Amino acid sequence: MNALVTDLYELTMAYAYWKNGMAGLDAAFSVNFRENPFRGGFTIACGLAPAIEFLESLRFDAEALAYLSSLKGNDGGPLFADGFLAYLGDLTFTCDVDAIPEGTVVFPHEPLLRVTGPILQAQIVESAILNLLNFQSLIATKAARVVLAARGDRVVEFGLRRAHGFDGALSASRAAFIGGCSATSHVLAGQVFDMPVAGTLAHSFIMAFDDERAAFEAYADAMPNNAILLVDTYNTIDGVHRAIEVGRKLRERGHTLAGIRIDSGDLAYLSIEARRLLDVAGFEDTSITASNDLDESLIESLKEQGARVDVWGVGTRLVTAWDQPALGGVYKLNAIRGRGGEWEPRIKLSEQFAKTSNPGLLRARRYAVDGEYIGDAIYDETQPPRNGDVTIIDPIDPIRRKTLPRSAEQEELLIPILRQGRRLQDLPRPAAIRDRVQSQLARFHPSIKRFMNAHRYPAGLEENLHHRKTELIRKIRGDETR
Amino acid sequence: MNALVTDLYELTMAYAYWKNGMAGLDAAFSVNFRENPFRGGFTIACGLAPAIEFLESLRFDAEALAYLSSLKGNDGGPLFADGFLAYLGDLTFTCDVDAIPEGTVVFPHEPLLRVTGPILQAQIVESAILNLLNFQSLIATKAARVVLAARGDRVVEFGLRRAHGFDGALSASRAAFIGGCSATSHVLAGQVFDMPVAGTLAHSFIMAFDDERAAFEAYADAMPNNAILLVDTYNTIDGVHRAIEVGRKLRERGHTLAGIRIDSGDLAYLSIEARRLLDVAGFEDTSITASNDLDESLIESLKEQGARVDVWGVGTRLVTAWDQPALGGVYKLNAIRGRGGEWEPRIKLSEQFAKTSNPGLLRARRYAVDGEYIGDAIYDETQPPRNGDVTIIDPIDPIRRKTLPRSAEQEELLIPILRQGRRLQDLPRPAAIRDRVQSQLARFHPSIKRFMNAHRYPAGLEENLHHRKTELIRKIRGDETR
Repeated sequence: MNALVTDLYELTMAYAYWKNGMAGLDAAFSVNFRENPFRGGFTIACGLAPAIEFLESLRFDAEALAYLSSLKGNDGGPLFADGFLAYLGDLTFTCDVDAIPEGTVVFPHEPLLRVTGPILQAQIVESAILNLLNFQSLIATKAARVVLAARGDRVVEFGLRRAHGFDGALSASRAAFIGGCSATSHVLAGQVFDMPVAGTLAHSFIMAFDDERAAFEAYADAMPNNAILLVDTYNTIDGVHRAIEVGRKLRERGHTLAGIRIDSGDLAYLSIEARRLLDVAGFEDTSITASNDLDESLIESLKEQGARVDVWGVGTRLVTAWDQPALGGVYKLNAIRGRGGEWEPRIKLSEQFAKTSNPGLLRARRYAVDGEYIGDAIYDETQPPRNGDVTIIDPIDPIRRKTLPRSAEQEELLIPILRQGRRLQDLPRPAAIRDRVQSQLARFHPSIKRFMNAHRYPAGLEENLHHRKTELIRKIRGDETR
Repeated sequence: MNALVTDLYELTMAYAYWKNGMAGLDAAFSVNFRENPFRGGFTIACGLAPAIEFLESLRFDAEALAYLSSLKGNDGGPLFADGFLAYLGDLTFTCDVDAIPEGTVVFPHEPLLRVTGPILQAQIVESAILNLLNFQSLIATKAARVVLAARGDRVVEFGLRRAHGFDGALSASRAAFIGGCSATSHVLAGQVFDMPVAGTLAHSFIMAFDDERAAFEAYADAMPNNAILLVDTYNTIDGVHRAIEVGRKLRERGHTLAGIRIDSGDLAYLSIEARRLLDVAGFEDTSITASNDLDESLIESLKEQGARVDVWGVGTRLVTAWDQPALGGVYKLNAIRGRGGEWEPRIKLSEQFAKTSNPGLLRARRYAVDGEYIGDAIYDETQPPRNGDVTIIDPIDPIRRKTLPRSAEQEELLIPILRQGRRLQDLPRPAAIRDRVQSQLARFHPSIKRFMNAHRYPAGLEENLHHRKTELIRKIRGDETR
């Protein structure tokens, strides 16, 4: 993959490390975000497989090097020395990567992915890793919310035309499927990720015929067992009646009208009425698809109004994550290996305390009682939690504490993925990751899954890490006031 | 380009056209949107060149056909007949395309791009065309707004880490540059689109050193004329003082401190104070870059507070179009060629009148007086405006009318791009399109460019088209009530 998928400052910093003889200095970075998106109570980790593929194939090819050598500084001279470009030309990614598996439910401040190794390499991959994890986690989370709202109905992702570029569409389709969608309308995504594809019919097809009946008949003739007829081009209820007529003709020929779709108007009223008309005519198996700027709130409201929808077609508001189109994941330096070989924790202060980073070789452990998850401890692997009760402290609001009992089941959230750049195991396919999302969500209390005032799941700093962080802050602040 | 970048229903409709012997029926489709994004008064057309590249290279290759032949219907049989797949395998794009050039200021309801030709071909390219035009027009518009807010200061796009996938980033960088940004941080975008790249320094670099001074010195040593020092890792004002010390050492060696960057805190106060300190120390030429979740509103507010910023680094909120992450552009069938060869207008009704489409072979003409644009007329090319005063009528609110005087200068907005699939001319490069945006914006009254309560520029249906549309609606409604 093209190593130029990076911000220029990653390369100028790399250049400065190289010039100062620090390229090989061992560093530990990790990715975390500060708030669950959509004012929700959880986030779905997604995007790891593409990130790992990027890292494994990281190369500066001849074309990339030629481009970098063409860049000029303010003095008109080359921005980068030739020796540095030669160094980049020989570079492959040899860091260690540990990460929380895709499809895991995760929370603010947890290290989603950790890179440990030569600082130059670990730095230049920041932009690409953040791009992939931020976007796919955002969309997988949105999809999981929409699927929760649909309470068992199928959700199909229809977003290609409003997604952010071809790849914005492709990766949104992947993440939406992982988050729980049943299928995508995007044919290439179906091919690339081995996911089911689905589709209905557009208004233009209806309009290309002299009338709706002729259009329905032509479409049903072409695919007598697969026709989903769009009934709202002119008048929705009339359209349902016409679809039923076409369905009767199909039935006489031994076929089944697959479904109808409603794309405008009062979806609650129209779906209830359409269901009634279909059932009265004996079309109990004909499905109703609804679409039109749907999201989790609208679906929740329509369900409460008794809408009779079998398939929810969700596009724009899913693939753009309409109400919050970015997850603010960051990639922070957590530790540097000193001359003696020991790891020195590093911290970034901020006037906004929520933006202060957590120091150390970060890991996270999840605790469960009777199968239900009760809390996560973020800790420094050089000082792991002792074999006793563990107290966790909220990183933003230290008054919020919780004790996780020693008797709880424990699982490590980060697993080793790359060692010196080599993959330790195959990564799961989207269908398996999708299953993981559902089995994960089932283990959390419903209160974190509601849309209004979601419960804050306890994910905090293990006590030792909290104290170490507090000391570091005090030390830096003390240095300042001297 | 891969023809599978499409929604499945485009292919099932194509299949039905093919099976019904209608694949070659001539149709006219066009793209339009219904509202300017961001509650603004204008939109920048963008994405045409990638859309045309997609159309020119449209092919169903062997792998695509193999995938399509693997798709099953509800009865377990193949979804598509082999004869249809063979037809797709031979297909190239032979339609005519007319479009408004990239970088043009456009308005709701105007036909941005028109496809005329065999309905099967014109239909299957819908999803890809909408994806490209919707997203790039959205981002170019956002960038134009940010650049207007910056009132002549440079704006650099920093969005890679929060954009929607690698290509979401790449195409956002292109559109942001076209909209008026001076440079991007995304190195690959710089290479691919021949745009300037720019960058500063991250907090991690500062934290990798024992203290801020050591980090500044190492960075400045590596690139003595190009160093932009990030001053807010620990304490911003202290950071400015340290940057000045490093700047003095650079000056002793004949170099210039290029700039500083502030990424947190009160950007108005800190930039004013930093400017004062830099000026007092004789660093009048050292620039100040500001960043931190900026958008046009925040920049406007900071400018009003007297912020002394030379370069605005804008990321997340630009490349995700944070406050409206999709432009709702649609692709509608406007006309079908009848058996006698004449074009028959088609219309889609909707319970939401704003969603009712406009019929005919659509074009648009822009009128200017003394160089300033005063109104646009959308018309049917089979009934062009007469050589007299032209009345335009708002498509949503027919009480809003305006007369464009016969004495006004006139220009056609849509130009021919493809004829039977062949390109008539080279399309401009991003730098030329970027110039067009600025020269276009200069010709509109400031009232359409303000952020609050922007003026609604008159872009309406030419009288004949309005009457034809009204008749068509009456006819369909009449049929319904019979």
